[in-house]
Amino acid sequence: MSDPVRIGIIGHGKIARDAHIPAIRGAADFALSAICDRSGPGEPDVPLFRTPAAMFAAGAVDAVAICTPAPPRYAIARDAIAAGVAVLLEKPPCATLGEVEQLVALAQERSVPLFAAWHTQYHPVIDAAAALVRREGLAHVEVRWEEDVRKWHPGQDWIWRAGGFGVLDPGINAFAVLTKLLGAPIVESGRFEIPAGAETPVKAVLHLSAGDAGIDAVFDWTVTEQDRWTIAVDTLAGSALLLDLGDGSLRIDGERAPVTADYGTEYDGIYRHFSTLLREGRSSVEITPLRMVADAMLVVERSTSLWTIA
Amino acid sequence: MSDPVRIGIIGHGKIARDAHIPAIRGAADFALSAICDRSGPGEPDVPLFRTPAAMFAAGAVDAVAICTPAPPRYAIARDAIAAGVAVLLEKPPCATLGEVEQLVALAQERSVPLFAAWHTQYHPVIDAAAALVRREGLAHVEVRWEEDVRKWHPGQDWIWRAGGFGVLDPGINAFAVLTKLLGAPIVESGRFEIPAGAETPVKAVLHLSAGDAGIDAVFDWTVTEQDRWTIAVDTLAGSALLLDLGDGSLRIDGERAPVTADYGTEYDGIYRHFSTLLREGRSSVEITPLRMVADAMLVVERSTSLWTIA
Repeated sequence: MSDPVRIGIIGHGKIARDAHIPAIRGAADFALSAICDRSGPGEPDVPLFRTPAAMFAAGAVDAVAICTPAPPRYAIARDAIAAGVAVLLEKPPCATLGEVEQLVALAQERSVPLFAAWHTQYHPVIDAAAALVRREGLAHVEVRWEEDVRKWHPGQDWIWRAGGFGVLDPGINAFAVLTKLLGAPIVESGRFEIPAGAETPVKAVLHLSAGDAGIDAVFDWTVTEQDRWTIAVDTLAGSALLLDLGDGSLRIDGERAPVTADYGTEYDGIYRHFSTLLREGRSSVEITPLRMVADAMLVVERSTSLWTIA
Repeated sequence: MSDPVRIGIIGHGKIARDAHIPAIRGAADFALSAICDRSGPGEPDVPLFRTPAAMFAAGAVDAVAICTPAPPRYAIARDAIAAGVAVLLEKPPCATLGEVEQLVALAQERSVPLFAAWHTQYHPVIDAAAALVRREGLAHVEVRWEEDVRKWHPGQDWIWRAGGFGVLDPGINAFAVLTKLLGAPIVESGRFEIPAGAETPVKAVLHLSAGDAGIDAVFDWTVTEQDRWTIAVDTLAGSALLLDLGDGSLRIDGERAPVTADYGTEYDGIYRHFSTLLREGRSSVEITPLRMVADAMLVVERSTSLWTIA
């Protein structure tokens, strides 16, 4: 058996601690070899660097998972690839489509594996749902993505600034599911509600389509009573699917299908796939969910929300 | 010599009358065979249809140029391809990137030529400038796109609505030039000024980059004194290029280069290329300028302009 891949985490925030590090510690193929964070305390027994440049210069890692907010990811990934370090990008891969294109070109030029990971695509219920949709045909889809921004993004100011995605930061996870389920839906129209002083929406209502089927989607960060991450699919054959990423269940005509998984399962799947890519020296970059956000930005009407950030 | 291609115009507005129809009437390869417009009088001696469906059902055309505003183009092009009619799309090809992707897939599936035309890319000064930039390397670019919206877009309400592009409707022409000159620039940051009651900017200030070179771009629809469509390029070897798409000139270190062309030349070039594509049964779809607009939408700060539409 070959040595585990020495992997570093860049950006030691909530998503790194909650999802990436447990998945890495649980994977025999990887060894957590370095943390890079501007200011935090890092992890016990893991070397800590303050800049990606210092981490690369020390030769401390074979691969990195970039878990910063989206805006700085491009420059960090570019420097990693230049240093010959393989890159896993947390979703969304970059702040813009142009940046992703450039990274793909660089990774190819340098033969360095690049992986743009969409965690919800690794949820086991999706494969089962996708198979049913392929078999029965698509009639209509309803997406409800409701959560409390104060609970899930405490103190994260970047989500409201230019280059942040607002409620489409979690919302892009639904786009990743739709992409795996239905191919590449078209964004037709929609509405953003943007809080005073913010650049990004706290609520987005979008109308999409996939072939002849319509998709109605609501993304709402103002819901405090109960989180909801559901995708309801009606097939042409009359089946009603309900994917609930909250409890990890898939219901078909109200009956619970025998497949379930929690949040952690998704990141375990991501690291299994990253290991395969590294072994085979390949890249895997899916850009469609980010393209859907960019397209939404092109077509929506914007209005000011009565909800306030503070 | 083979018979000329029977071409129809869909959307008999300003751009069709000013640019497409003169180019078609001047091209031996094409015969203007039909006009489709919901309400206008059409052209003398050319059959007039009120809907694309009626035009296709009559078997009146082998190809169409779609010259409507961007939002309805996708559905029209999809129906044209389904009818086996080749499609030329005025810029921007569609309202969203997802729509363009779908059309590319459909055109390939049906073996119907699809051409997304960017008229400024057919301006003869661009080839000369691109050759110099390749030879000398890029140091810095400054884009100034200034015009009077009331003069160039009289009564065109769609430019201000969701799905319109505002000042990036002419601005995307500069992106098309940059794409041909520099590859695929990255949009880094910027600012939109949006009039009260509008969804789209009347002024946009953007910072882009191409490799290590910076690109500063200003798009301003509030300038009434004098139109300006210029791209100034400083090369690493010290040359200063000024592309002026207003007078069709290229100046190098202040000296006028012996290459010039007017607006009409661009559309003549478009139809020469469309003829080649039709003869060879090929498609040609450049998506980068639209991707740059979508990326700008992702990163800009938005503020309300004091300028008013009415």
